[in-house]
Parts: sequence; structure tokens; C-alpha cells
Amino acid sequence: MPDTARRIVLASRPVGEPKPSDLRLEEFAVPQPGAGQILLRTKWLSLDPYMRGRMSDAQSYAKSVDVGGVMEGGVVAEVVASNVGDFRPGDIVLAPSGWQTHSLSDGKGLRKLDPRGAPVQTALGILGMPGLTAYTGLLDIGQPKAGETVVVAAASGAVGSAVGQIAKLKGARAVGIAGGADKCKYVREELGFDDCVDHRAADVGDRIKAACPKGIDVYFENVGGPLFETVLPLLNTFARVPVCGLIAQYNMTALPEGPNKVPQLFRNVLTKRLSIRGFIVFDFHDRFDAFERDMSQWIKDKKVKYREDVVEGLENAPQAFIGLLKGKNFGKLLVRVSP
Amino acid sequence: MPDTARRIVLASRPVGEPKPSDLRLEEFAVPQPGAGQILLRTKWLSLDPYMRGRMSDAQSYAKSVDVGGVMEGGVVAEVVASNVGDFRPGDIVLAPSGWQTHSLSDGKGLRKLDPRGAPVQTALGILGMPGLTAYTGLLDIGQPKAGETVVVAAASGAVGSAVGQIAKLKGARAVGIAGGADKCKYVREELGFDDCVDHRAADVGDRIKAACPKGIDVYFENVGGPLFETVLPLLNTFARVPVCGLIAQYNMTALPEGPNKVPQLFRNVLTKRLSIRGFIVFDFHDRFDAFERDMSQWIKDKKVKYREDVVEGLENAPQAFIGLLKGKNFGKLLVRVSP
Repeated sequence: MPDTARRIVLASRPVGEPKPSDLRLEEFAVPQPGAGQILLRTKWLSLDPYMRGRMSDAQSYAKSVDVGGVMEGGVVAEVVASNVGDFRPGDIVLAPSGWQTHSLSDGKGLRKLDPRGAPVQTALGILGMPGLTAYTGLLDIGQPKAGETVVVAAASGAVGSAVGQIAKLKGARAVGIAGGADKCKYVREELGFDDCVDHRAADVGDRIKAACPKGIDVYFENVGGPLFETVLPLLNTFARVPVCGLIAQYNMTALPEGPNKVPQLFRNVLTKRLSIRGFIVFDFHDRFDAFERDMSQWIKDKKVKYREDVVEGLENAPQAFIGLLKGKNFGKLLVRVSP
Repeated sequence: MPDTARRIVLASRPVGEPKPSDLRLEEFAVPQPGAGQILLRTKWLSLDPYMRGRMSDAQSYAKSVDVGGVMEGGVVAEVVASNVGDFRPGDIVLAPSGWQTHSLSDGKGLRKLDPRGAPVQTALGILGMPGLTAYTGLLDIGQPKAGETVVVAAASGAVGSAVGQIAKLKGARAVGIAGGADKCKYVREELGFDDCVDHRAADVGDRIKAACPKGIDVYFENVGGPLFETVLPLLNTFARVPVCGLIAQYNMTALPEGPNKVPQLFRNVLTKRLSIRGFIVFDFHDRFDAFERDMSQWIKDKKVKYREDVVEGLENAPQAFIGLLKGKNFGKLLVRVSP
């Protein structure tokens, strides 16, 4: 066991887009587990858009990371030493340890993973928080019916890719929106969406319209920003809009004015009887078992595919995270912290 | 039976606030019922905010009234002559006859009323469309729990007065918003709301906040306009916003910009996990029996009170309707068309 551990702390609150200097790599002594404690060594760190919110002190649904504090995040880790009866060295666990190579835990909030099942890092992606976000947001809120049209942005990403594939499994038409020809090709050809529109195209609105000849019944909102304004006129009567994330807004210091103001939106809400509902994945923790059962089966049956974008080494996490907020990743973004 | 009937037709599409000249009183010969037809004489005409939408050719959930066509509206009418087996002279019916003293019907869409029950004109108010709007919007969408806070605007009106009283019956705190001291006093003292705020007060936002010390769990949106912007920061996590009407917008030729644009709204939707859902009362027609059973009982038990604002004579309907859109009515607005 090396004597030195590493962690990434919040050096300063970003204004707009995070800079590398807003995050700082620190070394520290590998902690020793006391009574009732477990020492974990991180194998995989998940990088997710929600982390941008934790860097800010704006009011949100969760507490901010303190300046100087370790960045929050979910990891897959190996138990190195344990003074907790249920855990033994070598166990692989899902843990909320944050951006660091080593951490202590009292065992609460850990979930043991079976290394003989799916690759353990899927517990951070398709079989974890992003997968559950897609599953519950689409099925519990979006409730697509066969023949309806589901549109999702960031369609090659961890959440969006699952949304469209689940929509297909439920008999709906799945239309993705993604940045660039490569991602769109992947979404259409590998993931099997019916269509995918490049949001960088000048005529993105016309292309979305053409891809949805019967309008849009579910718009899974995980991006925010001008795309919603484009989608709003295409929503059908009784359309549902689950809102799980607004990545396009996270770096904004001032929110933009779109063509549709709140009164216009409400006119649409009324006349089309829209349902707009925000959710956070842990609102649906009681759906985890159903999700895990279904999603494991779908992966086994090759009905749902996933793609990982792996960055090597904790020291490269800040740059990867900054890129994530700009859509530079291609698939679920993971940091391999140790072998 | 007089030989001359009267009707009010749409003379021109209003721009902004309707003018008296946008509506025209016409005389016509009392029609004679043919085979399979019923002749109805209108007793009561209901005036409702939704009618402003029918005067416009903007896209909405229902077809516009044609220029020159009879204004749409629900009435309580007496059967004068009938060539339809189920109906006999003297029967009292609820009918979609519009703004006229006489009309023909084939019997479809008529509902017989029992004159020995509640006053027949309540079928246009507390026991009709406005009552069902309040009942389903609050219970099916708002779903108030005991101890939660429900806020409703136009609280002395046909829908708002029922919303607050039903909220009280479900154990919630009911806070109304109304225009003027008299209406607020009525809402508090007669209807039994916990509080009522005068929206004409300069510090309306502070007053609403003070009236809702635990925030707002259900905001029943039947007004639109700047009030929602005031309410938005007071909404609690998991708050529900049923949207049934936007009377404040109906006369606007251009919708205003408020302080909250769509991106700001969505940030609130996400972080607070708000549900915003538009509905039209006929989306819930299968709830009518439950509504009628409950509401009849509540009225009988004096747990729900209602107030009527009665205008005499069809010729006075246009001015009364123009006043309705400005909040001049006090209670459910009805026109007594014939004794």
C-alpha cells in the first residue's frame, strides 16, 4: 500500500466555465481505519454534470462542496482494510467517496458489487445513477406509449443513450440530439434510435421537426438552454417533459433570454396540457430494484448498449470534467483511478 | 311563446380588451323544432373567462367562434317543445346553446337537471364546469396533503372559491389572492380560507410570503401574469402547479416579460422538483360522478359555500363579460336570460 494518497479539492468557486485552477490536486497520508471504519482504495471515479452545481454556492437541492473540500462524486472502490464486520479486504463497493484515491467509510451508504456480474464500473453508469435517471425519468414521468415520439438531447451520453433505447423497448419512436456527426452516427447505428439530429447544424429546429413528423410526446430535458425553445412548438397535446438536468446552463453566470418567456410557456402548458416535472434520481430510490432487474436483463440480451469514455489517472479528472460540461466526452465519462 | 328570439354574435375579433362593438345583439325568429329536434328556451347563461379564447383565432385547445357566429357558452334551459323521446316540455336541461334566448338541439350533449335538488343554475357553477375544474385540478393534480399550503388566485371567483374550500376539507392551509378588501373579507370570513391577500396591495409579494410561513405546496394557477413570478420563489420542494387558466393574459396582444425567463423557471423546476401541469376540465370528464357526489354532499352540509353574481337580461351579457375579464364580478357570473 503506498503511503501517499491523492485527492482533488475545490480551490475556488468557478465563475462561469470552471478553470483548471478552480481544482487542486493534493497529496495526503493514506488514512488508517479506526474502530468501525473501512479503508477504501478508489478504482473508478464517475464524472457527472451535477458536480458543477456542487462547486457553486447557489441554492440547489444539495449542499455545495466547501472551498478546500474534496470534490464529491461516486466511486467504485476496493476494500483495503476493514474494521466493519460486513466488509472484507478485496470486496468491491460503490461508495460516495469523492475525487480521491483513498477514503475512510463507516460502511453506511456502501453497496457491494459482484465482480462476476457486469463490469463493476457500470455501477457508475448504465447500471447506476445515470441509468436509473433515464429509467425513472422516462418510465415514471415520461410514460411513453407505443407509437409515441420521445426526444432526448445529449443522446450519446450516459443518460440520453439509455433514454432512447428504453423508449425503443417500449415501442416508441426515439429521436436523439447530439453534437457532431460521429455521435449522431453512433446514436442511430449503434444504439438504434430512429433518428439523431446534430445540434450544431444551423437548421437544427427544422431537422428536429423533420425527424418528428407526428410531433413530440415526451421531451426528456437533460440539457436546457435554447433547445427547449426549439422543442416547445413541436410538443403535442398532453406531452410530458421530465426535467433531470440543465447542463447547458451550469456554466452560465446569467441565464439567457429565449424567445419564449414564462407567460408564453404557460400558454403552451395550458392549451396543450403539458406536464413539466423536475426530478432528481434519488427521488426514485425505491425504484432501484426494478431498474436493476430490467436493465441487467436488457444488457444481457444486448437490447441496451452503453459506451464508456475512460480517462486514466485522478490528475486528469479536472480537465475531463471541464470537457464534460462542453460535451467533449463520448459516452459515460469515467476516471480509472487505480487498476 | 314570443315570435322573436335574440342572440349575441361575435361581430369582430377583439384586439386586446373586447369592446362592446365586438359583440352584436341580433333578433331572429324563434326556430321550429323539426323531426328529432328539441326547442330550448334559455333560463341562465354562464359567463366564463375561457370565452375570451373562443373570440380569438389564435391556436388553442378548442375551435374559435366564427365572426358572425353565436358566442359559445353553457346554459340552463327549459324544453319548450320536443320531438325527441327522452325530453318533454318543462324539462330543465344543461345545454351548450351559447348566448341566445332560444336554440334547437338533437338531444345530444344535454343533461337533465332535477329542479327539486340544488338551484338549477348551480349546474353552471359550483356543481358544474367551474366546480369540476376546482375539484379535479386540486385533487387529481395538486393532491394537497394535510398540513400543506394551497394558494389560489381569483379566490372569490367560481373556481378559486371552490379550490380553497376543498383544500380546507382536505386539511390543508388555504390562502387566497383576490382583488380588493371586500373580496378578501368574504374569502376569509365567509369561505373560511386561512388568509387572503389583496393583489392590488403594493407589497403583494411580502403579504403572500407572510401568509405562507411554511412556503407553498400547491399553487393553483388560474390567473397567470406577474402573480406567478411572485409565487415562484415561495414554492416548496415537490410543489405542484395545476394550470387551468390564464385570465390575466387573455386580453394581452403581446405577452409580457417577467423577471423569470424560461431558463430560470426550469432551474426552479429542476432544483425544487416542481410539477407544472396544464389541464382543461373536460380532460377529467370521467371524474364527474365522484365530483357531483362529493360536492352535492359538501353543499348540503354547508362545508362548501358559493356566491352568484347575477346580471339580468341577455342584452347585458357583453358588458358583464368585459367586466369579468377585469375582475369586476364578485362570485360566479350568470346572466338570467328568462325567468
